[in-house]
Amino acid sequence: MTVTDGYLVNNAEYARNFTGPLPMPPSKHVAIVACMDARLDVYRLLGLREGEAHVIRNAGGVVTDDVIRSLAISQRLLGTREIILIHHTDCGMLTFTDDDFKRAIQEETGIKPSWAAEAFPDVEEDVRQSLRRIQASPFVTKHESLRGFVFDVATGKLNEVTR
Amino acid sequence: MTVTDGYLVNNAEYARNFTGPLPMPPSKHVAIVACMDARLDVYRLLGLREGEAHVIRNAGGVVTDDVIRSLAISQRLLGTREIILIHHTDCGMLTFTDDDFKRAIQEETGIKPSWAAEAFPDVEEDVRQSLRRIQASPFVTKHESLRGFVFDVATGKLNEVTR
Repeated sequence: MTVTDGYLVNNAEYARNFTGPLPMPPSKHVAIVACMDARLDVYRLLGLREGEAHVIRNAGGVVTDDVIRSLAISQRLLGTREIILIHHTDCGMLTFTDDDFKRAIQEETGIKPSWAAEAFPDVEEDVRQSLRRIQASPFVTKHESLRGFVFDVATGKLNEVTR
Repeated sequence: MTVTDGYLVNNAEYARNFTGPLPMPPSKHVAIVACMDARLDVYRLLGLREGEAHVIRNAGGVVTDDVIRSLAISQRLLGTREIILIHHTDCGMLTFTDDDFKRAIQEETGIKPSWAAEAFPDVEEDVRQSLRRIQASPFVTKHESLRGFVFDVATGKLNEVTR
């Protein structure tokens, strides 16, 4: 039995008490961009309820082209008007460099990824980088609020990053 | 007061009862790729606890290069060995075409995105497309389990997609 099988058992229990469906557009008009880190339960740490906000997550919570794509769809087709960026302390992206990571892949597989790994040495500075990428995008322009935070994995607290 | 401000109040409450920190590597060695849809509380619908699994989300839950990047980091640096893909019924990605979406952006801004919007007309077929993209990737090769599901937003149930 895999871990996946165990999660499917949990899902059957979840479905038993489920009441739905909710509408497609996020009721609070918010989009959140966060790191994929296992310790960030975004719904719990923000007190989100189902149906309120889009949640976009990748390695680092970095604003890549795929995040711009997701935010453009979120704003233009589903009406979100606030963006919350969440990086966090003790992030895996602080532990390597793009060059080393891509070289290791090339040595094992013979193929060098054409994409950047997006590692970063300073979490607050990378939040600022992500804020700037959104501000520079011609495709993500509908928000009235854009703020960036570092989640502290030791305390559970979000600390805002000043620009 | 923005919705963001309200979520920060919730976070202060969350931090009051927080016990941490947990270790960085996912304790269940699982990575989940899901749609950003507001109705998918991935932790609740799978019964995940903090620290167990990476959670990667974008518009559609589509396997893009950014998802390959995140999965490569997840597997190679943080040891995950199972992948769960989650699309869902009533998805926004079923409601438009790439051509129309990109033309609307071009008409408003003058600039046509260089990325695909990744809209799809059939949710099960797009789960299969995402499974195939992972199987075809030279960079995501460490998993022992790879399965795809459609979450039913009316019942809360995950239904597996056969290949």
